Amino acid sequence: MRNDISQATIERLPLYLRTLGFAEAEGTEIISSDEFGRRLNITPEQIRKDLASFGQFGKKGVGYYVTELKNRIAKILGFENNWNVAIVGMGHLGDALAHYKKIPELNFNLVALFDNDKARIGKKVNGLEVSDVADLKKVLAERNIQIVIIAVPTEEAQDTVDALEGTTVRGIWNFAPINVKAPKGIRIVHEDLTVGLGSLSYHISQSWNPEN
Amino acid sequence: MRNDISQATIERLPLYLRTLGFAEAEGTEIISSDEFGRRLNITPEQIRKDLASFGQFGKKGVGYYVTELKNRIAKILGFENNWNVAIVGMGHLGDALAHYKKIPELNFNLVALFDNDKARIGKKVNGLEVSDVADLKKVLAERNIQIVIIAVPTEEAQDTVDALEGTTVRGIWNFAPINVKAPKGIRIVHEDLTVGLGSLSYHISQSWNPEN
Repeated sequence: MRNDISQATIERLPLYLRTLGFAEAEGTEIISSDEFGRRLNITPEQIRKDLASFGQFGKKGVGYYVTELKNRIAKILGFENNWNVAIVGMGHLGDALAHYKKIPELNFNLVALFDNDKARIGKKVNGLEVSDVADLKKVLAERNIQIVIIAVPTEEAQDTVDALEGTTVRGIWNFAPINVKAPKGIRIVHEDLTVGLGSLSYHISQSWNPEN
Repeated sequence: MRNDISQATIERLPLYLRTLGFAEAEGTEIISSDEFGRRLNITPEQIRKDLASFGQFGKKGVGYYVTELKNRIAKILGFENNWNVAIVGMGHLGDALAHYKKIPELNFNLVALFDNDKARIGKKVNGLEVSDVADLKKVLAERNIQIVIIAVPTEEAQDTVDALEGTTVRGIWNFAPINVKAPKGIRIVHEDLTVGLGSLSYHISQSWNPEN
């Protein structure tokens, strides 16, 4: 039904949501697309075009009702589904993600943590006990988990993803720096922090190089 | 000089670099743009267009020389500048970033860690001692730091960024979920993990909602 929506549009929605959250916290009730664009460093035309893909938003000559738009974007992004989430791999990254406040704030339920290291299994991280990854399929079923975050070392990533076949899992958020292939029917999003770091390095290099 | 390069192109370069790194590790010497595109899930036309922005790459009818292209992209991204990097905020996220292997692998030198918590100052994280953020300006100057990673709580982010004015710092990689404003002359890249998580939730919701 919504196959015509571009990935770029989808990726701007969380930024819209964040900006609306700040505006709401400040007590702003209505925001014009000009002001909205200014805060996001995106043109008002782009915002109007993105939102038009999903239906009628805002009032011409008035602006967008902040809380209403925020709730509608959260709904478009599926946050009202209250997905149950697990993290596999409780090293430094898994630990940081287990403490990442946006996960509960966006209505995701972090309900399981997994590791294969005996020293970590049974320990609590942010109040949640680390399970043995040997029990992965059992725990995923018992806790009805739809999203798995992959925070294991690169060389374990594909095996971990393969083990999700035939489970309740519908989506994978992959932090391992490798293009793991997801089982049929499971969506995968690759997170690669080198994109941000590389972009920063590129821009500062432009004014740094002597020939520029 | 390179103001005509789109941000989208710049953000694809680190993904190209990663894929070339895998190809090189496999012993692949030449890669066609078709094969390159297949691995990246990007059209060969897009890859050719992106690379053409930076000059002449590859050989018509043959493909790209993997190691040569990898080195040239790393150079375009400024990785040969060996930027000195600091992390401010040594909570769970700062700790994960201090262990993030891509930072040294891409030739960044992580040379300082900062926190304002007496319990953390003086402790070593991944072999590097945590400095008192009160000594920020002194340490930035002494260690000639060009990039600062902001991993402090949201409410401390703007003050931390303001303190970078007039230092050696030229770039900020901001993980605080707030649109902090960088001092004049300092480039800022905002990292927002809700983009990836939101995109995943959106896609799995499309097949999840009963009406679809």
